[in-house]
Amino acid sequence: MKANYIDDLVKWEEDFTFYEEVRVRFSETDMYGHLNNTVPYVYFAQARIEFFKHIGYFEWTSPESDKFIVVADLQCDFIKQVYFDEILKVYVKAARVGTSSVDIHYLTKNTDNEIVFTGRSSIVQINRATGKGTPWTEKEKLILIGK
Amino acid sequence: MKANYIDDLVKWEEDFTFYEEVRVRFSETDMYGHLNNTVPYVYFAQARIEFFKHIGYFEWTSPESDKFIVVADLQCDFIKQVYFDEILKVYVKAARVGTSSVDIHYLTKNTDNEIVFTGRSSIVQINRATGKGTPWTEKEKLILIGK
Amino acid sequence: MKANYIDDLVKWEEDFTFYEEVRVRFSETDMYGHLNNTVPYVYFAQARIEFFKHIGYFEWTSPESDKFIVVADLQCDFIKQVYFDEILKVYVKAARVGTSSVDIHYLTKNTDNEIVFTGRSSIVQINRATGKGTPWTEKEKLILIGK
Amino acid sequence: MKANYIDDLVKWEEDFTFYEEVRVRFSETDMYGHLNNTVPYVYFAQARIEFFKHIGYFEWTSPESDKFIVVADLQCDFIKQVYFDEILKVYVKAARVGTSSVDIHYLTKNTDNEIVFTGRSSIVQINRATGKGTPWTEKEKLILIGK
Repeated sequence: MKANYIDDLVKWEEDFTFYEEVRVRFSETDMYGHLNNTVPYVYFAQARIEFFKHIGYFEWTSPESDKFIVVADLQCDFIKQVYFDEILKVYVKAARVGTSSVDIHYLTKNTDNEIVFTGRSSIVQINRATGKGTPWTEKEKLILIGK
Repeated sequence: MKANYIDDLVKWEEDFTFYEEVRVRFSETDMYGHLNNTVPYVYFAQARIEFFKHIGYFEWTSPESDKFIVVADLQCDFIKQVYFDEILKVYVKAARVGTSSVDIHYLTKNTDNEIVFTGRSSIVQINRATGKGTPWTEKEKLILIGK
Repeated sequence: MKANYIDDLVKWEEDFTFYEEVRVRFSETDMYGHLNNTVPYVYFAQARIEFFKHIGYFEWTSPESDKFIVVADLQCDFIKQVYFDEILKVYVKAARVGTSSVDIHYLTKNTDNEIVFTGRSSIVQINRATGKGTPWTEKEKLILIGK
Repeated sequence: MKANYIDDLVKWEEDFTFYEEVRVRFSETDMYGHLNNTVPYVYFAQARIEFFKHIGYFEWTSPESDKFIVVADLQCDFIKQVYFDEILKVYVKAARVGTSSVDIHYLTKNTDNEIVFTGRSSIVQINRATGKGTPWTEKEKLILIGK
């Protein structure tokens, strides 16, 4: 199974370097005994925030800033069931930088190094005054793609 | 089984008239097949808000108000297991009004009219400027006890 | 803004008839004051279950059944911010029936009849014994598309 | 402020040695900008499980075991507001061992070593066959109190 945002799985995987580790909580399981399928979005959000901190974006857009970011869409592709108490690595990368948006991709692996779910979301930079998308500077683009 | 905030169970039950109905979500169950024991607190919060709306307290303390309320403590006593898709009635009442606080009690029943969990919490009215508890007026006390 | 699973928005909207109503909980908001963007997936799951009950699929695949369904992927497109205590109509329809899968679409509107978020997911029918996808019968296909 | 399960705060604090660390997720905040007051129960559950693992109780009651444990009641006392991204230490101890139950206490501190919330719960050991409470062995009692 392969999601439509993945061209070449091997190459796609190689580009991930940053990850956030999470441990599956008992309250996150459901009566099927699995991690409930509403929870990966919580992990993605947490890992995305840590990713933005890591690349330095969060310090840079303080509450006083005239810009902030919103999630325009977010999807998850479920590959393998996940169970209580598993430790997962939620990898995050900026896959494609647009004028005022960026595609964020997610790759989640269990401790056997198996892919359990993948995902993508589109993030848009908004101008606080106008409420509309506002272009990244060249410096911001470089930060997003990790240069 | 009887919690320490219940003197006479029959009498305690009789005092409840207001309730909010909730349906147990699939994502709120856990791998034991039950409603996870972290979820009743969410139901209590929702029912408490509806209760405050019902008695007219919420309209009355608008964001412009110099007072707001906080939860000082909150407990739940688990009596009977609850399962996916059950419809519960979460009853709420103001049990004891203090100077600047009020004890809120909760009684939750399934469709067989069995008690599944009970609870209590202490709510405190805070003065926004000082951050400290501020006394209820006589009118507020009457509203809280439903007079 | 239009998601890639929507060809003609007007026509796409017209096909929805079933909906589940939800009220936004205080605990579902976040520090930005909005419904947190991890929550619509919970609403979609709840509405999807009610949809399957409505079309009669849930009675039909009992725990003794040799088949069950899983979510293969699930996405949400965020159109408009949602706030505490809003009442939302989460519409659900089966958009396209495959051999052993079905695309479920979601349309969520606020009380002003504005679209707040849309979504889609792919659901697969699994054979319990083999753990693999198993084709729908002709009768099942008709039930899914509401005939 | 002091909860009724705390006699001497200094002494009570000293008895805690085990803790689980959690970082406050964005999705766990609410529109007041605080950690929502339904979330500490999730942290308590997670820390309690880690505590039972730590003392060796979890290996010992496997799924094949004829005994398991349930939470009979659980309360939280809120002392200080907690914010997004704070790192908390959730301390857990067995405070009092009964015939077939044990009182678990919780102490949560922020990185300034301030108490942000405390809690207690009663846990009961159940016999799977009868569904009723079943006494701890002397060995189990010693494990629970950390001897």
